[in-house]
Order: sequence, then C-alpha cells, then structure tokens
Amino acid sequence: MIIVMKPNSTAAEIGAVIARIQKAGASPHPIYGVERTVVAVVGETRAVDPKAFLQMPGVEKITSISAPYKLASRESHPDDTVIRLNGITIGAKELVVMAGPCSVESRTQLMETAHAVKEAGAQILRGGAFKPRSSPYSFQGMGLKGLEILAEARETYGLYIVTEVMTPQAVPMLAEYADILQIGARNTQNYGLLHAVGRVQRPVMLKRGMMSSMEELLMSAEYILAGGNYRVMLCERGIRTFEKYTRNTFDLNAVPVLKQLSHLPLIADPSHGTGRWDAVPAMARAAVAAGADGLMIEVHPNPAEAFSDGPQSLKPERFADLMQQVKRVAESVDRALSTVPEPA
Amino acid sequence: MIIVMKPNSTAAEIGAVIARIQKAGASPHPIYGVERTVVAVVGETRAVDPKAFLQMPGVEKITSISAPYKLASRESHPDDTVIRLNGITIGAKELVVMAGPCSVESRTQLMETAHAVKEAGAQILRGGAFKPRSSPYSFQGMGLKGLEILAEARETYGLYIVTEVMTPQAVPMLAEYADILQIGARNTQNYGLLHAVGRVQRPVMLKRGMMSSMEELLMSAEYILAGGNYRVMLCERGIRTFEKYTRNTFDLNAVPVLKQLSHLPLIADPSHGTGRWDAVPAMARAAVAAGADGLMIEVHPNPAEAFSDGPQSLKPERFADLMQQVKRVAESVDRALSTVPEPA
Amino acid sequence: MIIVMKPNSTAAEIGAVIARIQKAGASPHPIYGVERTVVAVVGETRAVDPKAFLQMPGVEKITSISAPYKLASRESHPDDTVIRLNGITIGAKELVVMAGPCSVESRTQLMETAHAVKEAGAQILRGGAFKPRSSPYSFQGMGLKGLEILAEARETYGLYIVTEVMTPQAVPMLAEYADILQIGARNTQNYGLLHAVGRVQRPVMLKRGMMSSMEELLMSAEYILAGGNYRVMLCERGIRTFEKYTRNTFDLNAVPVLKQLSHLPLIADPSHGTGRWDAVPAMARAAVAAGADGLMIEVHPNPAEAFSDGPQSLKPERFADLMQQVKRVAESVDRALSTVPEPA
Amino acid sequence: MIIVMKPNSTAAEIGAVIARIQKAGASPHPIYGVERTVVAVVGETRAVDPKAFLQMPGVEKITSISAPYKLASRESHPDDTVIRLNGITIGAKELVVMAGPCSVESRTQLMETAHAVKEAGAQILRGGAFKPRSSPYSFQGMGLKGLEILAEARETYGLYIVTEVMTPQAVPMLAEYADILQIGARNTQNYGLLHAVGRVQRPVMLKRGMMSSMEELLMSAEYILAGGNYRVMLCERGIRTFEKYTRNTFDLNAVPVLKQLSHLPLIADPSHGTGRWDAVPAMARAAVAAGADGLMIEVHPNPAEAFSDGPQSLKPERFADLMQQVKRVAESVDRALSTVPEPA
Repeated sequence: MIIVMKPNSTAAEIGAVIARIQKAGASPHPIYGVERTVVAVVGETRAVDPKAFLQMPGVEKITSISAPYKLASRESHPDDTVIRLNGITIGAKELVVMAGPCSVESRTQLMETAHAVKEAGAQILRGGAFKPRSSPYSFQGMGLKGLEILAEARETYGLYIVTEVMTPQAVPMLAEYADILQIGARNTQNYGLLHAVGRVQRPVMLKRGMMSSMEELLMSAEYILAGGNYRVMLCERGIRTFEKYTRNTFDLNAVPVLKQLSHLPLIADPSHGTGRWDAVPAMARAAVAAGADGLMIEVHPNPAEAFSDGPQSLKPERFADLMQQVKRVAESVDRALSTVPEPA
Repeated sequence: MIIVMKPNSTAAEIGAVIARIQKAGASPHPIYGVERTVVAVVGETRAVDPKAFLQMPGVEKITSISAPYKLASRESHPDDTVIRLNGITIGAKELVVMAGPCSVESRTQLMETAHAVKEAGAQILRGGAFKPRSSPYSFQGMGLKGLEILAEARETYGLYIVTEVMTPQAVPMLAEYADILQIGARNTQNYGLLHAVGRVQRPVMLKRGMMSSMEELLMSAEYILAGGNYRVMLCERGIRTFEKYTRNTFDLNAVPVLKQLSHLPLIADPSHGTGRWDAVPAMARAAVAAGADGLMIEVHPNPAEAFSDGPQSLKPERFADLMQQVKRVAESVDRALSTVPEPA
Repeated sequence: MIIVMKPNSTAAEIGAVIARIQKAGASPHPIYGVERTVVAVVGETRAVDPKAFLQMPGVEKITSISAPYKLASRESHPDDTVIRLNGITIGAKELVVMAGPCSVESRTQLMETAHAVKEAGAQILRGGAFKPRSSPYSFQGMGLKGLEILAEARETYGLYIVTEVMTPQAVPMLAEYADILQIGARNTQNYGLLHAVGRVQRPVMLKRGMMSSMEELLMSAEYILAGGNYRVMLCERGIRTFEKYTRNTFDLNAVPVLKQLSHLPLIADPSHGTGRWDAVPAMARAAVAAGADGLMIEVHPNPAEAFSDGPQSLKPERFADLMQQVKRVAESVDRALSTVPEPA
Repeated sequence: MIIVMKPNSTAAEIGAVIARIQKAGASPHPIYGVERTVVAVVGETRAVDPKAFLQMPGVEKITSISAPYKLASRESHPDDTVIRLNGITIGAKELVVMAGPCSVESRTQLMETAHAVKEAGAQILRGGAFKPRSSPYSFQGMGLKGLEILAEARETYGLYIVTEVMTPQAVPMLAEYADILQIGARNTQNYGLLHAVGRVQRPVMLKRGMMSSMEELLMSAEYILAGGNYRVMLCERGIRTFEKYTRNTFDLNAVPVLKQLSHLPLIADPSHGTGRWDAVPAMARAAVAAGADGLMIEVHPNPAEAFSDGPQSLKPERFADLMQQVKRVAESVDRALSTVPEPA
C-alpha cells in the first residue's frame, strides 16, 4: 500500500500517517520527493484498511499494491483447478458444454431438449426451475416440479445437471438435485447466498454480474472458497454497456485475463453474452479460441414459444451445427470437446 | 407492442405473426409501408410476450409501447405517495434527512453520532448491523448486537431507524427493530428479498443498483408493491460508469424523471453517489434543488477510524454545516426541512 | 511513480528497473516488502514514461502519483480563473447564462429567440452555424449566413455570442464572429482543433466528451492552455451510460470535483445533460446548487419545429420561468445571476 | 416511425400529430388501442424528423423503424464489399494482417519492425507519423519524416502502408504516402475529417470510437460512402466500460453483428482492444474465430522502449508465434491468411 501525501503536506501530517501505520503493526517507509512525499506500507498490510487514511489531513490518495483476493489467485495456487464429476473434468484439456433451455417449462420440453443436446455432444443439461425475473408478472419457474423433471432427464439421458439457486434457504434442496449449482448474474454479490454455497459439497458456477468487474468476480469467488468449497468455476456472460444492438457486451477479454489471475476454470455463455441467437455460434467459436474451458448455450425446441430468453435460444439443429464448428476451433487451439459422460 | 417485419418478409411470414397475435387473445393491426410492414398489437397486450416473436421468420424487431411497471407508475396513481411515520411524513413538502454511520461499530460510536445528527436536525438514524462487503475478510457488521444499540439510540434520542436487510430470513427480525427497512444497491434485483419485504408492514427504502436502469428500479419496486406493501421509497445512490475520480456517478437526472414516472418518494444519497466527503455537501444541495424528497448522509465521529466508508463520511460539524446549507436551498425551491420528531 | 514488482521477481529484474530509472535521470527508491518489492521514482519523473516499464521482466504494474495536467491544475494556479468580457465576468460570484437554439435556422427564428432570452435575463446567445450531426443526411447548419445572423443579433440585443467551431481551418473566421468559441463534445479530443484554438485570443468553452473522464477533459484543456490561450472554461454536458430514459447521464459530481482540481470556470448544460426539456429546469437548479459558474440552455420559439435538439429545447416562457427559479437557488448558495450586459 | 401518444391524449392532440405527418408528405396510420393510441408513419419517412414530434402535446415517445444508415447497410448492398489492393483483397476469404509499431520512432525501429512482420507473414505495415496523444507533453509523432520512412519501408519490403490522418488539411498529403488511411478512435465522429476522406481515392479504415455504438460507427461510415469513397473498412478496437483490468473492453460481438448489418469488411484490433500484450494472442484468435476479415496488431522490436503503447505491443518473436496460432484458427473456420504481397 502506498499513501500519497498532498504537495503541501506538513511534517506533522506525515508524522501522523507514519504513527498510524506503526499502530496497525506494519512498517512505514517514507520517500521524500521533489513535489511530494509518499509513504509505502510494508509488512502486515492486510491489517491496514487503506480507506482509513483518506480522511487524514495531508493525504491525497491511496494505492493498493496487492490484489484483495487470495484463495482465488494464481499466486496462491499456481496449478489450474480441475473439477471432476464422474467421468468428466472441468478445467482440463477437454471442454465441457452445458446446454438446455433457460427455464424448465414442461416435461416434454425438457426431455426433448435433453435428448437433442445429448445427441449433439453436450455433457451437462442446463435448465432453470427457479427464475429471477425483472417483472413480478413474468413466469417465475416451475419450482420443485421443475427440479424433478431435471432429475428424470439426468437419469434418462445420462447428463449432469446445472441449475440456478436464488436464496440461501434453497441451497440444501438444490444441492440434492443439481450436479452444479449456478449463482446467477444478479446474485454475484449476494453475500448471504455466496456464504451458503460455500458450505455445501457441490461444484458452483459463479456468473459474473452484468456490472461486476473481474476483480469483484474474483472477490465473490473468494467468499465461496473461504467458506470451504473449492470447486468453483467462473462464468463470463456479458456486461452492461451503452451498446444497444446486443443485450450485453460479451467481455471475452476476461478469458485470458482471468486465466492469468486465477486458477479457477472459466465457462463462457455466449447466449447471454450476445442476447441474439444469430450471434451465438460466432461467439461460441470465439470463446473457445480465446481459451475458455467450457460453454453454456441456451437451446430450446421452439424458441418462438419459449417462456423466457427465446431471442437468444438456438434450435436443436442449429446447436448441433454449432457443436461441429466448436469442435474444429477447439482442435485448432489444442483442446478437444469432452466426450459424453456415462454417469453412474 | 409493434412488430417490425424485415423489408423482404413474405405474406406467409406476416400471416404467421398475425395468427400468433390472435391466438394470444390480442388484435393485430398490420400496416403495409413502402419499405416494410409493421404489425401493431392492440388489446390485451400484457398477455403477449414480445420476445417470443423475435424468433419468427421475417421478424426484425419488437418495440414495446407500455411501461412494464404498473403499480409503481404515476399513471395508475397520479397523487404522490406520502409515507407517514409518527410525526413525520416522507414524500410531502417537508424533506427528511437520514444520517449516521455506514456501520454500527460500537455503542459509543453510535450514541455519539446519534446525538450529533439529532442536534443538527436529522429525523432518522442510519446504521448498518449486517453489512454487504465485497471481501470476506472485511468487517461484516455487529449483527444482532448492532440492532440492539440502534434500538437504544432510538429510545434515547427520539430518532427513527433505517437499517439494511440482506436475506429473506432476516426480514421479520429486522422489521422488529427498524422503522424503515433498507434494500441495498447490491440487492436491487434480489427477488427473494423483494418478495419478503413485500409481505411485512414496514416502510421500505429501495436503493437503485449501481447497474440498474430507472426502469429496472421501478420494476423492483413493483415486486414490493405487488406483494402488498405500498410504503416504498426509492433511493438514488449513483451508478457505475467509466469515470474514476468518483466512486459512482450520482445520477440526479433520476430525480425529475422518476418523480414524473412514479408517485413514490425519492431519497438521494450523495455519500455513495460521490464516494468523497468533500463533494457531499455540494451534491446534497444539488439533490434538494432537483426535487428529492429527502437525503441519506453518512456521518461518523471519526471518519479516519471508520470500519467502512470512511472516505465518504462527514464529521458531525461538517454535517451540521451541510444541514444549514440544505435548509436554505430547500426554501429556495419552496420545500422545508422536516422538524425533529418526538416519537411516541 | 511507483513500480510494483511481481512477488517472484529476481534481484536482476529489480536491478534492471533501477538502472533504467537512473538512465532517465530520476532517482529510484526500492522498498523490499514481505510479499514483493516496489520501486518509487523520485525527482524528474515527468521525463520517465510509466508505460515503458510494463514490458520489463518482473514488473507487475505502475502507479502514477502526480496528475498529468499542470497548467489546468489548482496546484499550479490556486486562485479561480475569471474570464472577463466587456461588462460581465465568468468564474466570479455572478453566474452567466448562455441560451438560444441548438442551430441557427433563420433570421426570424434567431432574432425572436435572442429577444426572448435577453428579456429573461441571459447574457450570452448560443446558436450553431456549423453543426456536427451523426447523419450525413441531417441539416448541417447555415454556415456563414448563420454567423452573420448571430452578429446581427449581438448588435441588436446586446448579447455576447457563443458558437461551435469544428475544424482548425475555421477557427480564424469563427473567432471574428464569436465572443466565445465552443469546442463540442465530439471534439474534446480533436487535438488539431485544440491546438488551433490555443493560438487565438478568444475565450474557449470546452465541452466534456460523452466518453471523456474528468482527467481527460483537464488534459484537453491543458492543450489549449499550453498553446497560450488562458481563457478556457469547462462545460459538463452529460456522459454516456447504460441508462436509457435520458439522452445522457448528467454528471454533476464533476462540478465540485473539477472546481477542486482546477481553477477554470465551469458551465453546466442541462439541456444535453438530460435530453428532455421536462427535466431541464430541475437540473439547472441542481447545477447551480452544486456550484456551477454558469448555465447553457437550449431555447427555441417552437421546439416542435426545431431542426435539431427539439426534445430538449425550452419554449421562451418556460425559460423565463427557469430563470426565476435559478435566481432563487443562486441566492441560497450566495451567488447571483449576472446582470444583462451593455456591450460597447 | 411510430408515434406513441400518452394514455390520456385528446382527439385534438392526435389530430395535430396526423396533420403534421401529412404536411411532411408522409401517411399517418392511427391505431386506437385500449390504453392508448399510436400513429404509424408510412411513406417518405426519411423527410420526417422523429424528434420534432416529442414536443407536441399528448406525445409520449417516438420509435424509429428503419436504420438511419443506407449505403452502409447490407439491405442496400447484399454482397460483401471486397477492397482490392494490388495482389491482396480485404473482405474476401483471405484474412489480412496489419502489423507494426504504434508510432514511427526512427528509421531503424521501423525498418527492423517491417522486416520482422513481413517475415512473419503480414501484408500491411502500420505506423503512426501523426499521433493523437491525450497529453500535449507526449511525443506527437515524427510527422512528414515519419511518412518518408514508411514509404521507404514499403519499397524495401513490399508491404502496404496504413497510417492515421488527423485533420482534413492533411488528407491529400497522407493519401500520397498511404495505401490505407486510418481514422482513429477519437475521430470517429469528426465529421470534417470524414467528409475529407470521402473525397479521395484511397481505402479508409474507420475505427470505432471508444464510446461509439455500432449504429454510430455505421453512420460515420455512411459519411464517407456518401462522399463517394466506397472503399471503407470498419475496425473494432474496444469500447470504454467500467472494467479496469483491461484498457478497453474488446467488443467482439460487433464482428457477427456488423457483418450481418453491413457489407463492409471488418478488421479487429486486439492490441487496443485489450491494452495488454499478454492478452493479444488469445483475442487475435478469438477475433478470427468470430469472423473478422483481418487483424491489426502492434509490434515493436523493444516494447519497453516504445514511445507509445508499449504495454500492448508484441515483440517480433511473439508476433510470429501469434501468426502461427491465427493461421490454424483461420483454417478451422474455413478462412486462410492472405499471402504476402508482391506490390508493383
């Protein structure tokens, strides 16, 4: 941590800053420059709250040196985290594909989709039973009934299940039905929920909020890791910007940058990242070329009838075509698609 | 709702759109233009999901005509909502001021602050007992002990209490201690929480998320109103932009625009809106001049020692000075500061 | 400048950084911490390009300490800059008001508007003769003919003229007709143009770009000041964000922050800052309460017929009403409206 | 165009809107709904300014139906535009690569870089002779001398030249030296400059501004096309967002979306799109996988000594490696790298 003093700060003000650093158990290193003085803080700096200095007389600004996350950082854990489900791995050479509808709408709809995505080569079935909707008048999900349908699809087709959990209370129940618990973009900083999924033994896919910085995403992952659940994967799904031709701006820069900063696997969701089905295949290819460890794709047997996210859902035949394209791109970057699992 | 067809859409495609509108129980009105056809949808349009049409062949885009919120709109409720606590009103001519520390840190800290803000003319004491923090390693609040200290301050100084609630489970307990329940900016779209506060009989202050549009804020208010709790006030506290000299960009445009669109009272929070104590007085004045119904201001007896939000907290003497400034601006726009309450 | 080394950087890498700093003529101060080393750079740091170090082995990041602008900073010029025209001042206690149409459309339209804004108490007439338009098919301004009409209005009504200049070549001509040259928001970083207005003896009003940070705005002002023209005023007119209910997000935080950082006068433009005439009076009041030194307001005798910016233009009677409101708010913050000038 | 009336609009207000549409030469089609009336405008709608209606009594909002660009749209020109230089094509199956330093700094630096990028397979040499810099104290480019060095490199190595033009006056001179004129991101809406390059016979590469929407980029292209220069290529180079770990947010969504909306070739610039050399190869691969027609990459023989953009520049050996990676990805999407040209 570096404390930058104002150009006209007094010796007394500098002295007070130094004393405060010492009181916190760290070591101050003042550097007297031509225009101004800066004080570097060395030692146990995590005990020193940077913001506290901003109100001290003569202080102009504070600069942090260390990243605020630790368990999520590659510094603390240089090797890639690989999450193992029975028969597949997430974060290793093989890419996983999660596909399925935004919402479970009916048994027929889900089973039909599950069959199609399995045929096309996906390993994991997505589908929301509890849906966060911006309007209280929109379809809110089938709830428990939806979970039961997902469980049936798992058994019938041998697919893993990823589904969203929205409240801390629901975590234990969801953890029974799902192979992967999803934290949605609106809950990236719902700390009660992060706390709750940190205490169960289920892999968690943490989506980046539409206005979360990469640092905040890693800090939210830190909550889950600090709770004791180390099987966390991140998901880039687009951020909010001024651009209006797409629903979100898919920030694929996050792929190389997060892979450098963190050891956690990274999934890319081009369906939400674009909001337009006609841009999904191109951006799925791009995500794989950039180095993502997996994809999450919305597929619906009849997107025009979907209860939610129809505009960004692919028809099964288009999804099958996407899988062929992605396979070729994966090979061009020395990756491969995961094979279809045979769960116990 | 208006469905815009592509320039080269066929009669069959237009026919399919018309049929689908009729099936949903609404009336289609096709208009055949020189370059393209548009189909207006009239009647029970809320039953028709606009996005469903985007996947139909020949459709280019969809435009909504009506606002998606209803109970929150001024159309449905032309008169201003006025929230009454014993002795004060929120949303009428008199402005309320909520002031206090970001977090309750100790009995001494809170009682000292409560005394100071009461002396300066505030009516409502703010203070967090449960804190949403981006780092799992930061101070998370005093919890129940903090609530008890808040209750003591209420009794001693005759101030109302506003405090944040973070999980649905905590709502009943918080509703016992607080006069106003605050939904924080990270929870603006935490639908489980909105649902829960919609079912208690406590006024709710809903903060705009740093990523929420005004429309989304009104949709979140709609959740609470639809749950049966009509005592909702909105709070503008800054949005996230590219600007780095301030913590957030305080969107005071929201004051006149939300007051036009909605009947709900609107509080402005210049402490979060700027993130800099040295900009708080100017922006408090601006918020009142723009037409806000109240202010929320962070005050701390010793900001340099604050556990959180020190950089944006005012010392008590600066807060007293701000109150004098605000009083004059309020009078210049024919408003007045609320008098200090004498709660039962 | 602070150079932060990676946790595992070697002594050789640190040595290379130190050598490079010395070669540039500055003094390196290495600080060896528990986790990592940082090297502070002292002395003639402006000669050292911070970015150059980012490619050196072992370097993690660079932090600048000093602001990159100098002439525009309050540090270098503690007193407020006051720009004097004959009979009025900009940046002193009295507020100036610039009002008029977006574009000069005809002699009748301009003269009628000039008469109205003078009656209402404005001192400066705005009106574009050369218009930057996002479409090549939109009205591009009346050009020279528009300037002549502005000149006539000045003589008839005793108003100063502010008008936009778009290309370096046009600067000398515009400087003959205008009392203040306006650099528009799309040209905030048009360095050729900044260079050109830095060499004439006319006050310049520099608008913040919709994409410019406050720092970039001050750097653009620095271009003009460095050219030798010290009569520069800044203008906040809204930035681009995700919010869609307003044309721009009016960043009034810029008022207190820029007034702290810089000595230059600051004008606020609520017409562009909101894009909605019905929000202009509220935000004009807010800007004055926040401490702006003046206002720029679009006024049109018949906004529904305006060639440009109709939605944000006020009718003359609404502008007169706004002036009354603004006058009261100005007095509440110990400012006053400038009197109407009597130019030579 | 659709004019949406307020719910309580009167028959007289609707009548006035209808009359105004007729006066403009278009046909009004009112549709009387349950909650409100909308008026569709059919026929010569380009003559009708949508914004003019926003000030009419009873009008709530206006929705445009047609895109505001015409010559740039794929509707008006369904086939891909292919720009031919002697021996290479831009916008066809083969991808072009533009590589070189941000700025021409010396003859040695440029010739060394030219040799390296040619060896690695690039066809076009980039290098700025006139540089837009945010600080007046930074290196502003070598000017004419830089152009002469570029011309020598072209002759020596058989590479095409792309370089930036910053002012309308400089267009003719630059057009003599450059094979492609670049409009930089800060000048995307510098209409005087767009006008000037629309009147020369040189291909133009138009960069997207850091806060330009895709629609605004296409409107700026429209200026050049409307001037008579049809050889325009677009360039995605990142937009400004709240994310701080990268210099810009590289919006690769623009690749599939702009290719659908427009027939113009699209180049991707991952150097500016990320601002970090260590993310450039991943994002170059991603851009090609998404469907870009070419790449622009910053290469410098010694990035740590670069006068500008060092942090995002690749060393020659890393660039050669990138070319190998890109080649494989290109093949996986049925594209190929262009061969090295043999200019006349």
